[in-house]
Amino acid sequence: MAQQERARRTRLAILEAAGTVFDECGYEAATISQILALADVTRGALYFHFSSKEDLARGVLDLAVTTEGVVPQQFKLQELADASLLLADRLPKEPMLRAALRLSVDQRARALFGTRWPDWIGVAEGLLAEAKERGEVLAHVDPHETARLLVASWTGVQLMAEAVPQREDLVHEISLLYQLLLPNIAVPAVLARLDMAPDRPDRLRQQSARS
Amino acid sequence: MAQQERARRTRLAILEAAGTVFDECGYEAATISQILALADVTRGALYFHFSSKEDLARGVLDLAVTTEGVVPQQFKLQELADASLLLADRLPKEPMLRAALRLSVDQRARALFGTRWPDWIGVAEGLLAEAKERGEVLAHVDPHETARLLVASWTGVQLMAEAVPQREDLVHEISLLYQLLLPNIAVPAVLARLDMAPDRPDRLRQQSARS
Repeated sequence: MAQQERARRTRLAILEAAGTVFDECGYEAATISQILALADVTRGALYFHFSSKEDLARGVLDLAVTTEGVVPQQFKLQELADASLLLADRLPKEPMLRAALRLSVDQRARALFGTRWPDWIGVAEGLLAEAKERGEVLAHVDPHETARLLVASWTGVQLMAEAVPQREDLVHEISLLYQLLLPNIAVPAVLARLDMAPDRPDRLRQQSARS
Repeated sequence: MAQQERARRTRLAILEAAGTVFDECGYEAATISQILALADVTRGALYFHFSSKEDLARGVLDLAVTTEGVVPQQFKLQELADASLLLADRLPKEPMLRAALRLSVDQRARALFGTRWPDWIGVAEGLLAEAKERGEVLAHVDPHETARLLVASWTGVQLMAEAVPQREDLVHEISLLYQLLLPNIAVPAVLARLDMAPDRPDRLRQQSARS
């Protein structure tokens, strides 16, 4: 394994440990020692990659804006739904993503290094703007305004799912959110062809495994 | 002033001070001393009403479920919109409401004494169920599911407004959220008669001042 690849893996292992500790304890209570113990690396290795706890938090936040698993679709609105559903499917399984959300929600942590919400709003806005150009969205839809509401609602639904658990999982609740929102975003002919079902992430993964 | 009334006022002053301190510092960092200093009451008075910081947090949370200012309307959906818009209008001005939200969002505080989200979901669900009986809502709407999504989205929009400020204020953003959601909740004839404009809270107050 090349030295560069080893360094990359060490960096990721540290970030994953940081994500787990931030997710469990919150930013304030988290300590570098906990992160070191979990990542099983030396203090020297950690400080080679990250200068401080703040720097670790920034690293965790950077990895949280991801459209991994989203592949080109006939409709841009489908790609938007896919990005939202895939994130909802991954979040409960991935401490790093949960940590990023927790850091954004935490007022004190947020004051230190901001949030990645503007980036998420940017991703959604880009897809909505493209969808609009292609005639997929209703005339009244403003891509920036709608992107902001989508990211905000997604975040609220995640918080609620965590705080007031239901039988259903997060991807199920995000599916319901999209079923509520999309009829006032998509033109009917596109709406009828969108797949917003909770098992959409599973099917996307099966498709990509086959191709 | 009767002794009972004086006790009620002291209790409220303490809760308002607690709300301000929780809102500014977060639950963990807040101290009883800060709350005492701000409320300008003796330690004895505080401990007469509240046994601990947790107890103060519970008191703040209890006052946050309020439909104050909502008056009976022709449509139950209008009352739902009014409750949401009035809360959005008040929250930026009232530290106690902001503190209640912050306590709900804070994972650690939440583990200690829960949230008032189930109560808010109950309020919205009750209005939606009544609206459904009266034929105001579309056939596919499930009052509990929709109430949950409404409260979650409202919360997300508030968080986003605080974290990623825009030119517009919270009541403006909640107005946009309702304009996005209600077309897929209300039947068209009711939708056309709903007032979801950002200045709705001002007009409600003017109406109640005249009557």
